[in-house]
Parts: sequence; structure tokens; C-alpha cells
Amino acid sequence: MTATVNREIHLASRPQGWPTAENFRLVETEVPKAGPGQLLVRNRYMSVDPYMRGRMNDAKSYVAPYALDAPLDGGAVGEVVAGEADGFAPGDTVLHGLGWREYALVDAHSARKVDPDLAPVSAYLGVLGMVGLTAYAGLLEVAGMRPGETVFVSAAAGAVGSLVGQIAKLRGAARVVGSAGSAAKVERLTALGFDAAFDYHDRPIRESLKVAAPQGIDVYFDNVGGDHLEAAISALRPHGRVALCGMIAQYNDEVPPAAPRNLAQVIGKRLTVRGFLAGDHQGLRDQFVQEMAGWLREGRVSYDETVVDGVENAPSAFLGLLRGDNLGKMLVRL
Amino acid sequence: MTATVNREIHLASRPQGWPTAENFRLVETEVPKAGPGQLLVRNRYMSVDPYMRGRMNDAKSYVAPYALDAPLDGGAVGEVVAGEADGFAPGDTVLHGLGWREYALVDAHSARKVDPDLAPVSAYLGVLGMVGLTAYAGLLEVAGMRPGETVFVSAAAGAVGSLVGQIAKLRGAARVVGSAGSAAKVERLTALGFDAAFDYHDRPIRESLKVAAPQGIDVYFDNVGGDHLEAAISALRPHGRVALCGMIAQYNDEVPPAAPRNLAQVIGKRLTVRGFLAGDHQGLRDQFVQEMAGWLREGRVSYDETVVDGVENAPSAFLGLLRGDNLGKMLVRL
Repeated sequence: MTATVNREIHLASRPQGWPTAENFRLVETEVPKAGPGQLLVRNRYMSVDPYMRGRMNDAKSYVAPYALDAPLDGGAVGEVVAGEADGFAPGDTVLHGLGWREYALVDAHSARKVDPDLAPVSAYLGVLGMVGLTAYAGLLEVAGMRPGETVFVSAAAGAVGSLVGQIAKLRGAARVVGSAGSAAKVERLTALGFDAAFDYHDRPIRESLKVAAPQGIDVYFDNVGGDHLEAAISALRPHGRVALCGMIAQYNDEVPPAAPRNLAQVIGKRLTVRGFLAGDHQGLRDQFVQEMAGWLREGRVSYDETVVDGVENAPSAFLGLLRGDNLGKMLVRL
Repeated sequence: MTATVNREIHLASRPQGWPTAENFRLVETEVPKAGPGQLLVRNRYMSVDPYMRGRMNDAKSYVAPYALDAPLDGGAVGEVVAGEADGFAPGDTVLHGLGWREYALVDAHSARKVDPDLAPVSAYLGVLGMVGLTAYAGLLEVAGMRPGETVFVSAAAGAVGSLVGQIAKLRGAARVVGSAGSAAKVERLTALGFDAAFDYHDRPIRESLKVAAPQGIDVYFDNVGGDHLEAAISALRPHGRVALCGMIAQYNDEVPPAAPRNLAQVIGKRLTVRGFLAGDHQGLRDQFVQEMAGWLREGRVSYDETVVDGVENAPSAFLGLLRGDNLGKMLVRL
């Protein structure tokens, strides 16, 4: 039984600096009909992610900018309600890229069937999806973390950061340090098994890091950029590695921010700084899913979700994400 | 016949910002006597190098700072005039680390015999020495340049930069671009086989680079830092690599300089930025010497030297190096 009205979120205008509710528009459309090779999907959860902020600018990047007066998109999981395509049938749960709307018309070749009995369907947008792969690939493949090393991760109570810390411990890190933006988050990090955690508002990050990792760090997983990156470069030991995953501290800056002024240390300490996108590491996916599913089964990995209800509240979920209101993965339930 | 007076250069005071002649002092001492396992070496050439500026600060780094009121040190080549040690005899030409003085008392185990008939002895401080290895290892091992790629190198008329460009061409780079600080240097780069070269004073580096490499670059070999690094990050293509070798633009800054403000591109373009020191790449030395000696024999690599005479002029040679007065390797003949 399919409704006839679909609700979706359009980009009404491009944000200058911090986005506001006015940059978004709730639009009612007709539920589309599936043609050959298409699936009509009733979305159940959609993801809001920091990288979406970049796509709201009209700037060349690794993904095309969002178009004005058209629905936004992004990771979503839902149920096939109509459409015929090889290997799919109504009732299937699928993961795809057309979030920010209640009903999505998805090309079957860009949908992936997931098992709703193996894990809550929202997990496919988080711990078992791109979020989990980002943490896993960034830490193990990009930064090449080895057992016995000290790891620092920023935005550590976020979806990616909290997994980075837990994976690091499970893979033998000697010490894992996280930074976050509130006392409650710091407390949560300790509960998740981080050896040390601090609120980056409390004092200069460099000082907090010196207390948390007096011997220095070997790996920095960067979700933040700016002062965090500068402090990490100072704390890194010779031959240390940085995996650059995100720079949420500067996504809303109209003028690009001051960058680390201590890059000369990258030479003397022979550091490696690598940017990455999880999409380049699909070769790790099977290994990742197998290992992560095992950890989840054994209760060795925990993950948090912050859930907002209703597509009409997706913009405010996104704004909250940029402010750091979320613990773990920020999701919208549709 | 050994003189009895030795002249050496001491660090009289630590420079604040740009060094001046007053930071150095010419000191006469007695020529020392070689004890067991020691060689007394009459230095013929000494090297001045940009990294020495960092050692004049009282700051922790990968090498200890120079001491005040003591001789500076650095690469030098000279003739053994006295001393008995396994494998060495008076008349041997040796490469060692005690420059900035006419006579050096060298521990035999830290000297390396070189063949003065194979190449002019000064070459062991440049094209066949650490300078050459720096260019070779940085380009091929750190940046992993592959045939068909486009390479950009800054300070390209300097000792390291001019070799980077030539090695890149010999190893199959499709296009090699260099920046330098004068029209005469730009002309020299063209003569050395660079496909394009520009004077970085002429206009914003980003614009010059766009003209010189309209399709972007794959590898940036950085001797300069600052604006050059920022421009290179913007010009790099996806999966590009940066070998950070030096940051001469900022060695004399009292306040660390503005750093690249476009580091977010390191993520989207999945760039790798690696600092390195040639000393970590000694494993390449035999391969490097063999390949470089062949290129020199065949006349396929040229190298420039700027030679200043007399140990008393070593400070001004060093100051000239920091100002960019040199073409190729800056040397002091003693």
C-alpha cells in the first residue's frame, strides 16, 4: 500500500558560512512510478553526514555540488515497495544513495540488498556501512596502525571517531586518545574503552594532548582539521602518520582557516599525511564486514545513534550534526 | 707539510630571523694532532646547506642544535694529512661531517673514502652525495614518481631542485616544471631540459603553475613551503604526492608563517604529503650512485656549482644561499 504523496528536502539556497533552516525547503511531490530496472523504495532511515556541507557550495570537488531547487541526496536504507529488477523483489531492504526523501526511485544497479535480520537496518548507514569502512580503512590501511602504537582521534564521540578508537584497541593499540566537544561525550569515550579523552574547549589542544599522551602519538585520525591537526603534528613521533578524513572545524568558514603553522615538523619527523575517501577502499569491504560483524556479535564494539524523526526535520538534524549535537551516528527516521 | 694554524667558524650568537655576519666568528686554533683511530683532514671543500639554518636555533629537531662558541659542522671533503686508521692512509680523499674549518680531526669510522679520479671531489658534496641522494630518493621513493607523470619542483635552480628535474625527465616524466627566483635561473632551467619554468616573483605562483602545467601535476617536490605548497596542493591531481624536503621560505621567520589554507583538498583529492630526510634512504645509495654516475658519464645530467673561496667567507656563502644567490650547489673552497 503506497501513499501518493512523497515529501522531500530541496536545497533552496546555498549557505554562506553556517547553514540555516532557510537554505532548505520541504517539497511535496507525487510518488514516482518504477520503470524497467528501477525500484521504488520507501526510505526508513537516511544519513546526514559532514561531507554534505561541502556539496552545498557551488565548488568543484570529488563529488558534484547539490543542485538548487532539487532534492538533496545521500545514504539511505529502505524497503522496496514496487519495481522489478534482477535480484530484487518488493519487501527487500536496500541501501542506496537517494536519501532526503520519503520515496526514492532507485536504479537497481545502484542499490545493495542488506539483511535486516543480521543487524538493525540503521546499522547499514553506520557501523556496518560507509561510516564503519571509513574508520577501518583510514586507521588500518591509510594510517597503517600497528599493534603497540598510540592513536589520537578527533571528533571521537562521532560516528567515525568512536569506531576508530574501538578498532584501534581491538587491533592492539597501546593507547587510544580521543577529543570531543562536551563533558558527556568525554565520559562516553571512557566507557567505550578510550584510555584518555578530553574536551577540546577546556584548554589548548596541544596541552590536553600532552597530558593524555605524554610520550607522543604515532597515528592521528583527523576529522576536524585546524588546531587539532596542528596539535597532532606537534605530538607525533618520528615516522608518524596522519589519516585526513574530514575537517569539520572549517566547513562553514567563509574564508579558509589558518592552517597548521608547524608543517616544517612533517619533514624533520618524516611524517606522512594522507587524505582519503572510503570509496577508494572498497577492496577492504568484505574483510571489514566480516571482522566488524564478529566484533558486534561478541559485544566488543558499541555504537551510538542519535535519531531525529521525520523528513521535515532532516535539515535540523543536519544543522545539529554540524554543531556537534549528536552522539555517534546522526540519523533521520522516516 | 702541515700548517700549524687552523681557522674555523664559530657560532657567536643565535640568529633572530635572518642571520647576519655578526652571528659568526672566525677563530684561529692550533692544528690538532690525530690520536688512535683518528684522521687529520685538510678540508678542500665544505658544504653550506639550508638545513643548517634550523640548527642555529636552540630548538629540538632531528639533529642537535649547533653549540655557541664552538665550530659549526656540516659536509666536507678533504685530504688525509696524518693519522693511522684501518683502511685509510695519508693522501686519501675523504668525505666527512666536520666542515666550517680548514683542518678537521675526524673519527675514521665517520669518514668515507671517495675516488678523486672518478669525479671532481666537490661532486661528493653535491650530485654524487647527499644532495643527489636527496633528489633521487625524494622523487622516486618518497613521491613514487611514475613514467608519464607531471612533476613540479620549487627552488629548481638549487642543488637539489635541478637534479630532481633532470632525474624526473630521465626516468620518464611527461612534463617537468620548475620555479626559481630570477630570470637567469629560469633560463638555466630551460637549458637543463625543464619543459617549463617560471620566476615566482612574476605573479601569484598558482597562476604561473596553471600556465606551466594546465592539466595539473602529479608530484610536487617541495624545497620551499608556504605559497609554493599551497599552489601545488591546488594544482595536484587526484592521488598526487608531495615530497616535503625543505621549507626555505620560512627558515628565517620569527613567527611561523601562514600555512596552506587549502589542506581540505588533501582529502578530496586523496593526496599524500610526506616529509623525508635523505639519511633514511641509505638503502638506495648504491643504486643511486651507480645510476647517477652513468648519467654523468653519458653527459645526461648537468650540475652547477657556486664556489666561494676561503673559510673566512663561509658565513657570507651561507647567507647568500639563504638569499638564493647560488646557481646549483653552494660550496666553499678552502
